[in-house]
Amino acid sequence: MKKLLIASTSTVHGKKYLEYILPELSLFFKGVKEILFIPYARPSGLTHKAYTEVAKTAFEKINIEVRGIHEFENAIDAVNNAKGIFTGGGNTFLLVKELYDHKLISALKNVVENGTPYFGTSAGSNITGLTMQNTNDMPIIYPPSFNTLGFINFNINPHYLDPDLNSTHMGETRETRINEYHTINSTPVLGLREGSWLAVNGSKVTLKGDLNARLFQQGKAAVELPSETDLSFLM
Amino acid sequence: MKKLLIASTSTVHGKKYLEYILPELSLFFKGVKEILFIPYARPSGLTHKAYTEVAKTAFEKINIEVRGIHEFENAIDAVNNAKGIFTGGGNTFLLVKELYDHKLISALKNVVENGTPYFGTSAGSNITGLTMQNTNDMPIIYPPSFNTLGFINFNINPHYLDPDLNSTHMGETRETRINEYHTINSTPVLGLREGSWLAVNGSKVTLKGDLNARLFQQGKAAVELPSETDLSFLM
Repeated sequence: MKKLLIASTSTVHGKKYLEYILPELSLFFKGVKEILFIPYARPSGLTHKAYTEVAKTAFEKINIEVRGIHEFENAIDAVNNAKGIFTGGGNTFLLVKELYDHKLISALKNVVENGTPYFGTSAGSNITGLTMQNTNDMPIIYPPSFNTLGFINFNINPHYLDPDLNSTHMGETRETRINEYHTINSTPVLGLREGSWLAVNGSKVTLKGDLNARLFQQGKAAVELPSETDLSFLM
Repeated sequence: MKKLLIASTSTVHGKKYLEYILPELSLFFKGVKEILFIPYARPSGLTHKAYTEVAKTAFEKINIEVRGIHEFENAIDAVNNAKGIFTGGGNTFLLVKELYDHKLISALKNVVENGTPYFGTSAGSNITGLTMQNTNDMPIIYPPSFNTLGFINFNINPHYLDPDLNSTHMGETRETRINEYHTINSTPVLGLREGSWLAVNGSKVTLKGDLNARLFQQGKAAVELPSETDLSFLM
């Protein structure tokens, strides 16, 4: 049975990397001694090695070892043998390009559909949706497709940001961008604020964390959903 | 000789559409009675017709007529016959997809290199660079390529936004995104703040408007450039 934890962000303001979600991760990965880390999104251009060190330092606190996928000779085997998987944030275009280049899309789909627990933050959460088309990232590299893993039957907008009512900036708000998406696409989009995550168990999806999430559906007004909302109706 | 006006935004806070730049446009399109408008970027999902009306209303004030490219039976002929071209902002992914679908990339390159004056705002400015990879837009549609018109030998980041030092949001700043771009690409990127534009005459490029622009080059610290800076060294 599918088991995912899909988080808006790795880090909330004023706390260390993953600190806010470590208690949840400890339960989520219960019984797992080592997880596979996918560092391909390379935030701020960090090397795979340096990024994996960041993940290691956080997971040490809950006694879980972390190995970066770049440490393995064969990335597909690494996915197939993993007891748990964590894909970190960074640039979604780069992440998706690397997943296709390493032919990992079908391997990831296969193991996660068959029960390997998957944790994603930010870009690592974006790719759990049907497509990466609601990323906030800059298209720094051209991926062969925008289609992603489809573990959930909708898309994620991580780091969802409410409009700044005092801003004089004329660039589009996040809501405007998602509405533009819905002028030509019908996939629902869930705006996950920083500190929120989704718990997925099979086809059951529940909103977790302290904050509301904002659901955008084509042809409907956006709605605010409180924590603990059952989102299975989207699956 | 190439003649372009590449603007960060169509609209500055507190003013009407194109109002801040109409005096400049009047000089730029001197002697031109009618321009071709390319509404493909469809801001907020506006129809081509409705968007063209917005452009018409602005250009009426300087006695220039506007016809939308969708009004012509043959879009390539429309570009070839245009006395001036304006590409409006909106979603860059959608704009670039439509330009490729309508086979307009080479037609636009050809006429603008041969002297048809070209004015772009936001997405319409993004496409004057080598690639669209420094857009701020959401990838709402998959274009066949990120390569764009290359009228200038660098890329534009329109609506350039300085980091909000009071923000508690953990999403990447604009500068972080552009630096991530430079971890894997060498094309220089010019962050154009709202109210700034570039005047291009052949291979001469000058920064115009009241504000500084911010130049990002691979392996160098970003620099602030004052208005009237000659940017021809980037060409």
